[in-house]
Amino acid sequence: MAKDSYLVGLIGAGIGPSLSPALHEREADRQGLRCVYRLIDIDALGVPPESVGDLVRAARDLGYDGLNITHPCKRLVIPHLDGLAPQAEALGAVNTVVLDGGRAMGHNTDVTGFAASFARGLPDAPLERVVQLGAGGAGAAVAHAMLTLGAGRVTVVDALPERAADLADSLVAHFGDGRADHATPDRLPELLTPADGLVHATPTGMAAHPGLPLPAALLHPGLWVAEVVYRPLETELLRTAREIGCATLDGGGMAVFQAADAFRLFTGREPDSTRMLADIAELAGAVGTRS
Amino acid sequence: MAKDSYLVGLIGAGIGPSLSPALHEREADRQGLRCVYRLIDIDALGVPPESVGDLVRAARDLGYDGLNITHPCKRLVIPHLDGLAPQAEALGAVNTVVLDGGRAMGHNTDVTGFAASFARGLPDAPLERVVQLGAGGAGAAVAHAMLTLGAGRVTVVDALPERAADLADSLVAHFGDGRADHATPDRLPELLTPADGLVHATPTGMAAHPGLPLPAALLHPGLWVAEVVYRPLETELLRTAREIGCATLDGGGMAVFQAADAFRLFTGREPDSTRMLADIAELAGAVGTRS
Repeated sequence: MAKDSYLVGLIGAGIGPSLSPALHEREADRQGLRCVYRLIDIDALGVPPESVGDLVRAARDLGYDGLNITHPCKRLVIPHLDGLAPQAEALGAVNTVVLDGGRAMGHNTDVTGFAASFARGLPDAPLERVVQLGAGGAGAAVAHAMLTLGAGRVTVVDALPERAADLADSLVAHFGDGRADHATPDRLPELLTPADGLVHATPTGMAAHPGLPLPAALLHPGLWVAEVVYRPLETELLRTAREIGCATLDGGGMAVFQAADAFRLFTGREPDSTRMLADIAELAGAVGTRS
Repeated sequence: MAKDSYLVGLIGAGIGPSLSPALHEREADRQGLRCVYRLIDIDALGVPPESVGDLVRAARDLGYDGLNITHPCKRLVIPHLDGLAPQAEALGAVNTVVLDGGRAMGHNTDVTGFAASFARGLPDAPLERVVQLGAGGAGAAVAHAMLTLGAGRVTVVDALPERAADLADSLVAHFGDGRADHATPDRLPELLTPADGLVHATPTGMAAHPGLPLPAALLHPGLWVAEVVYRPLETELLRTAREIGCATLDGGGMAVFQAADAFRLFTGREPDSTRMLADIAELAGAVGTRS
């Protein structure tokens, strides 16, 4: 029989509400591919994050074609893989594993996905000075994406100074001197006044963490604002920024393009990201309504 | 999201040519269910049959809804299950595991599948004296099915006398004194002359083992002949028996009804066995052509 079926899944903690199954299965349906996407939740299984290696091996043995990997396993999975794509190696984090012929290859489509979303949604945005809030896993991915897109300098701001410093150091090591630095949140006023754009990569604004991640008074019309949160698609930050006159980019694009890039890796087929953007508007909207 | 997707698989050795993926996936497609059926071949994985327990646990953790189990794991899997359906317990063999809510329940749809096929294909067949060739795993299942259908006595004939005796003993223990006995192949002439029917449950007649499992001269028009082999559907035994004037039953029905019964257990939906019989005629025919 022709290889027309795909078995994929997501390994992580607390992933019950993930939209990945719907995003992948809907696009596969439209392409006439048989696809099942399963959630493999380490909390539900009662296993520690370190078991990600066993789960990847089991998935390989049980006919999985690939896996997405999310918090808290994106770094832990790396020693269990047979190879890494360049973005994953640069970032030190994997969100996509392709299982093929007994080998497990790691990729990072958070980086490529944010880059694709930004290039599509804010194509003419100036990139000389970018301030980024948040130096966690998502923050590392989007900072790599911004510098890959040609940002002159990314200043990483985080309430945990050490985490911000570590990310800035790794960005400099990879992209060169002067391309990144770090700061504490109290310096946001002086950083944002001359900045071209703000990337928001903390959980604030999610249904479970409502509110603004910084004082509204720090926003100004000369700033574009790119959001990583996508549930809801319209966060308080984006609403406030749009009212002030900022160009904005919601988090749905990153969610879609990381899934689209993973879909391409899993299936070898070209996904239709326009259809997938319509899906996430419907799916994330429905989630927002419920919250 | 509604539970409209099913992830199932088959664990066994040398199962590459199995028709189970096609049987299950085609019926699921017609019912509008998302279904992926994977082959988990212990030979290909290079693991021993005893690893079936680990594979069942891994399948449960990785979102499988159920498994079929075949040679050489049908008995070995039992200690790893949380419970057994009556046919599986009586037979001491499991070909279907339902994974639901963290529990693994064992069933045997070889028994129910052969019984359903026989009741459909030879509904008026006399069952007083039945001779069965073959006391292996398939033989045990079909002997249980024949006695469940009301056969007066099943005489188990096998080239390995101990295996025949063990099966006959277990049948007597389960169905009662006098319901089963055993014999060596040299006694076939005296057994078949007064018999109502012959069940064939050895591999002879398969593409890899062509030929007749007994001398053609032992067949007579008063005998019905039921075949377990289904690749090809038309074995030399069935062709010879039909020429002599015997009523016959091919092995496709058992293959379909065991799959249909497993489909019902996996999905909770009623399969359309008539459509599945058309599938196996096409699929087994195609295999026969290739061989």
